[in-house]
Amino acid sequence: MRYELYYWTGIQGRGEYVRLALEDAGADYLDVARERGDDAIMAFLGGEEKGALPFAPPFLKAGRLVIAQTANILAYLGPRLGLVPEGEAAEIYAQQLQLTIADFVVEIHDTHHPIAASQYYSQQRTAARKRTEAFRKERLPKFLDYFEHVLERGNGRQALARHSYVDLSLFQLVSGLDYAFPSAMRRMQRRIPRLRALAERIADRPNIAAYLASPRRIAFNEDGIFRHYAELDPSR
Amino acid sequence: MRYELYYWTGIQGRGEYVRLALEDAGADYLDVARERGDDAIMAFLGGEEKGALPFAPPFLKAGRLVIAQTANILAYLGPRLGLVPEGEAAEIYAQQLQLTIADFVVEIHDTHHPIAASQYYSQQRTAARKRTEAFRKERLPKFLDYFEHVLERGNGRQALARHSYVDLSLFQLVSGLDYAFPSAMRRMQRRIPRLRALAERIADRPNIAAYLASPRRIAFNEDGIFRHYAELDPSR
Repeated sequence: MRYELYYWTGIQGRGEYVRLALEDAGADYLDVARERGDDAIMAFLGGEEKGALPFAPPFLKAGRLVIAQTANILAYLGPRLGLVPEGEAAEIYAQQLQLTIADFVVEIHDTHHPIAASQYYSQQRTAARKRTEAFRKERLPKFLDYFEHVLERGNGRQALARHSYVDLSLFQLVSGLDYAFPSAMRRMQRRIPRLRALAERIADRPNIAAYLASPRRIAFNEDGIFRHYAELDPSR
Repeated sequence: MRYELYYWTGIQGRGEYVRLALEDAGADYLDVARERGDDAIMAFLGGEEKGALPFAPPFLKAGRLVIAQTANILAYLGPRLGLVPEGEAAEIYAQQLQLTIADFVVEIHDTHHPIAASQYYSQQRTAARKRTEAFRKERLPKFLDYFEHVLERGNGRQALARHSYVDLSLFQLVSGLDYAFPSAMRRMQRRIPRLRALAERIADRPNIAAYLASPRRIAFNEDGIFRHYAELDPSR
């Protein structure tokens, strides 16, 4: 089956978690908006297309199914791409972890947009500085400690009994945080040895390494979720 | 099976979406922290209990399974409690809608806590006023219009082909928004006839009516997600 991924062009955003799964598995997929433009997305959001009504991208077309919400897409793809261990308990736990990653991603986004996504960063810098300070001190360590604990409870190296879409998403999380908050992440370095080792192993997987080196991987930038603003990442 | 629900005492919070499903289905369940105190929750968060590691409540114990993340719990309970139409496509769409409700709930929470959940509302009132203004003007109409469209595309009265956990959650959403933003919701009244009718029908379901009239239903309050602060809901 050829999957169709619908996501905004120009940013990694939430589409990236799906891309990493498709790329790692060597799945056949079309990144629709990058081929045909963002109008292809708008037709679904406006209800002009059949099937499930998405609130926002990413969404995946798989045959006649339209599936939105990042974690929901991964729950669907997991067993089909061999990216989740077999069995209901593993699938449920993988999804729980993915949803916790999604919660973290919202908090990361809101560091630079605490007031409104519709306004520019420059319009909410004061609030962004306050929110990011609390994020660096409280939320970043809390989430990273949690995922480190998850790896410890998994098989010590991976979140679940074997490789899964959760590990791919943890790689993306660590990569994005390194880009956005290099100083804060340096200070966290010793607390997250398992996450660090996992991120390195994922980057070295042949299909992921090839993807990261290809033009299909969009670079991190200041339109995406992970943004680097020096004033939000003081050196101490 | 007797389900065990773990959620903080004193607020409806995200636990309420699970409670409404259990109550509507007449399921046998124990609301653990309300019987035994919050320590029962802490043991799971600290990793002292077996099974999946939750980042936060709510989580559900179902036999040996521990399931966290509200939408994930409902995905598990849906087929077991008869709260989702049969078939993979319906289950996936229900979950997509529930996750969009979850996204909306985060935005509702952050109206009064745009800077840090760890700080009091009084410490972030200036940012809260700005965030809530954008929420009332942009996000509230966008999400409510979307869910109204979902009902129109469902069977006209319900989100899916028949009653589901999504409808129960939409009831909770409308109830909470009526509590927190009565003025803004009055202005939205004519735009959401289907959501209004759905919320009334859900409130009249015998098990839900009995639950809402019981001491098991915690009242909305200013410790929860839906908070009423008059300054955040101007009359025009």
